[in-house]
Amino acid sequence: MTRIVMKFGGTSVADIDRIRNVAQRVKREVEHGNQVAVVVSAMAGVTNQLVKYCTDLSPLHDAREYDAVVATGEQVTSGLLAIALQDLGIDARSWQGWQIPLRTDRAHSKARIQEIPGAELIRRMETGQVAIVAGFQGLADDNRITTLGRGGSDTSAVALAAALKADRCDIYTDVDGVYTTDPRIVPQARKLAKITYEEMLELASVGAKVLQTRSVELAMNERVRVRVLSSFTDALPGEDTGTLVVDEDEIVEKENVAGIAYSRDDAKFTLRRVPDRPGIAACIFGALADQNVNVDMIVQNISADGTTDMTFTVGKADLPRARQALADVKGQIAYGELQEDPNVAKISVVGVGMRSHAGVANTMFRALADKAINIQVISTSEIKVSVLIAAEYTELAVRALHTAYGLDAN
Amino acid sequence: MTRIVMKFGGTSVADIDRIRNVAQRVKREVEHGNQVAVVVSAMAGVTNQLVKYCTDLSPLHDAREYDAVVATGEQVTSGLLAIALQDLGIDARSWQGWQIPLRTDRAHSKARIQEIPGAELIRRMETGQVAIVAGFQGLADDNRITTLGRGGSDTSAVALAAALKADRCDIYTDVDGVYTTDPRIVPQARKLAKITYEEMLELASVGAKVLQTRSVELAMNERVRVRVLSSFTDALPGEDTGTLVVDEDEIVEKENVAGIAYSRDDAKFTLRRVPDRPGIAACIFGALADQNVNVDMIVQNISADGTTDMTFTVGKADLPRARQALADVKGQIAYGELQEDPNVAKISVVGVGMRSHAGVANTMFRALADKAINIQVISTSEIKVSVLIAAEYTELAVRALHTAYGLDAN
Repeated sequence: MTRIVMKFGGTSVADIDRIRNVAQRVKREVEHGNQVAVVVSAMAGVTNQLVKYCTDLSPLHDAREYDAVVATGEQVTSGLLAIALQDLGIDARSWQGWQIPLRTDRAHSKARIQEIPGAELIRRMETGQVAIVAGFQGLADDNRITTLGRGGSDTSAVALAAALKADRCDIYTDVDGVYTTDPRIVPQARKLAKITYEEMLELASVGAKVLQTRSVELAMNERVRVRVLSSFTDALPGEDTGTLVVDEDEIVEKENVAGIAYSRDDAKFTLRRVPDRPGIAACIFGALADQNVNVDMIVQNISADGTTDMTFTVGKADLPRARQALADVKGQIAYGELQEDPNVAKISVVGVGMRSHAGVANTMFRALADKAINIQVISTSEIKVSVLIAAEYTELAVRALHTAYGLDAN
Repeated sequence: MTRIVMKFGGTSVADIDRIRNVAQRVKREVEHGNQVAVVVSAMAGVTNQLVKYCTDLSPLHDAREYDAVVATGEQVTSGLLAIALQDLGIDARSWQGWQIPLRTDRAHSKARIQEIPGAELIRRMETGQVAIVAGFQGLADDNRITTLGRGGSDTSAVALAAALKADRCDIYTDVDGVYTTDPRIVPQARKLAKITYEEMLELASVGAKVLQTRSVELAMNERVRVRVLSSFTDALPGEDTGTLVVDEDEIVEKENVAGIAYSRDDAKFTLRRVPDRPGIAACIFGALADQNVNVDMIVQNISADGTTDMTFTVGKADLPRARQALADVKGQIAYGELQEDPNVAKISVVGVGMRSHAGVANTMFRALADKAINIQVISTSEIKVSVLIAAEYTELAVRALHTAYGLDAN
């Protein structure tokens, strides 16, 4: 008996016909003899509409109310899919985050899952009932709804797979796997049969939006085998398709670079003439952390006349909050000027093979220089090199790098 | 210190601008020194769309899943109004049915409220926080979401007013009060300054859709003073406007007939050649009750050859369920034929003065006869006479009766 979690994203449940298709796909797995739990996103477009309502009413809205509003999208889909499955003669019921309850912390709009009691769901799955779980949402200890951040349904699915001790977590999406880069930009991009958790993590964190970053982290920590596959092609249960996200050990031939990713979700701040004294960075980034703003790349220039320039990036969604936080500490820090640039893109090359091969970063810098693309900020990790460039060069840069690393399909 | 419950229907919160207007109106009451709880409906059109999703997937869908789906409309509005109020500097938070918890029975899609613990809400209202309660929804003892039936937010509001011991329950809607009849049909219709619970109840039950029937019953039982007023005119707090629904004692001059109502929400069933023996009616209406189908008018002809004809009406929404239930008992009852007619309208004249004045029914029958309108079924109560006619005569009948009872404004 195989126990699986199937997760369907917004485009897979975009309308009633597609929800019926999803029900058919779930039914096939049930009839194949599997125990099945399903995690669903909101119907495509719904979450954006709900977010827009909140933002239109107030850019700095209460995140608890935002969560109550946006969590409804998944609630609708979970009930509809349960109805569609019942209509096919399959026993099914919907579960909201607060009903399970899927416990999270209180970081509203970007909450982290703390605990999922799986016993009751397992008991019902063993009787043949399909659990349809509303993704993206949970319950904080103050009895209020939380949401996990955009793409959070992936995290719901992986966490549920771990809690249910599932054999596999199948993430159905509108692409048929993980590619060496975005095929809309590079038609020669190739689908990867397997990718390591670490690579997937770096790709996800820099904008290859197949899986949410945290879902991959969680899969890695909990050793959940994740499969990314398309909900629009007709794979049979058990068939080998999509991309499997697994342990490094499972991959025999490792390439230097697995893929090229890009992200236009960040904005760049530069604080000019910051007094160069101990504790300044703590003060700036402490103020941002207090507002729940995640800071990504950080560069500090060498100090001249007792002051320095500090450049960093934050998610565009956090921009008003970050701007406010930085204005609030101006009295304390006495920086000269605050500059803001939303027109930036982060380009990254990723690969576990990088660890044992020198020259990967240099290939990147040379390829970009050849196209006269200016690098604004550089950051590196063990298996990734990222650069910040002007957003208008995004496609050009991705194509040049895909070719430079020999990733183009023949 | 006055404690009030304000309820806003779907058209009052139809878009972001209207939600802002509602927030302004709530703010005025707060600044007037009132403790305020607000009950909101879904944005206009949203519930219909959600119901359609369910019906499209399966006409006989699981009512528990239906409830999970349709309850989201009110959840969205409650969060948005909280954001709008906070943006005006008013402390506010949203409450879902399961958070209060607003306890109901398990009759999904038409649940009845059993208990609302008010202490926590009162405590917060006393600190100045506005409670925004999602209308129409509650929680059954199996921890699943219930809904109260269409228009259920009125019932939520009145029940909440009772639980909070509120001084008044203001129902904001798209009309500015209760009229002698539907002004869209009879332009000479007059607004009533006051109406008794009993009259309001009869009007609501026959389709004057200003208030849901159950909300009026509840108001009568709990002696909640209800005011119906428009959310689109600019009344100031404390101003005397709209229609007050109150005890009969509060109304000095009672008219014979307070109003004329109509409803096209019913469908007529006729069972031909039903064996005329004891227990038959119990069998038929028992089967319908088991399916949660409400039966309204019932007529049984005098028995001829050992069989009789049985005519009754049910809500159009219950039609498939009723048809199924009647087919299921055909073996048991052995009736001859089942006829179904959805093209009927129920026209009612209502007034507490009727009790002490004879001839009210006769005026009705004569007025309809003068227009050559055939009466299919008649039913009466202490303060109401209703007839079932072909739906195409609805407007003609309402106008004729409004004139016949001298209700036309000068």
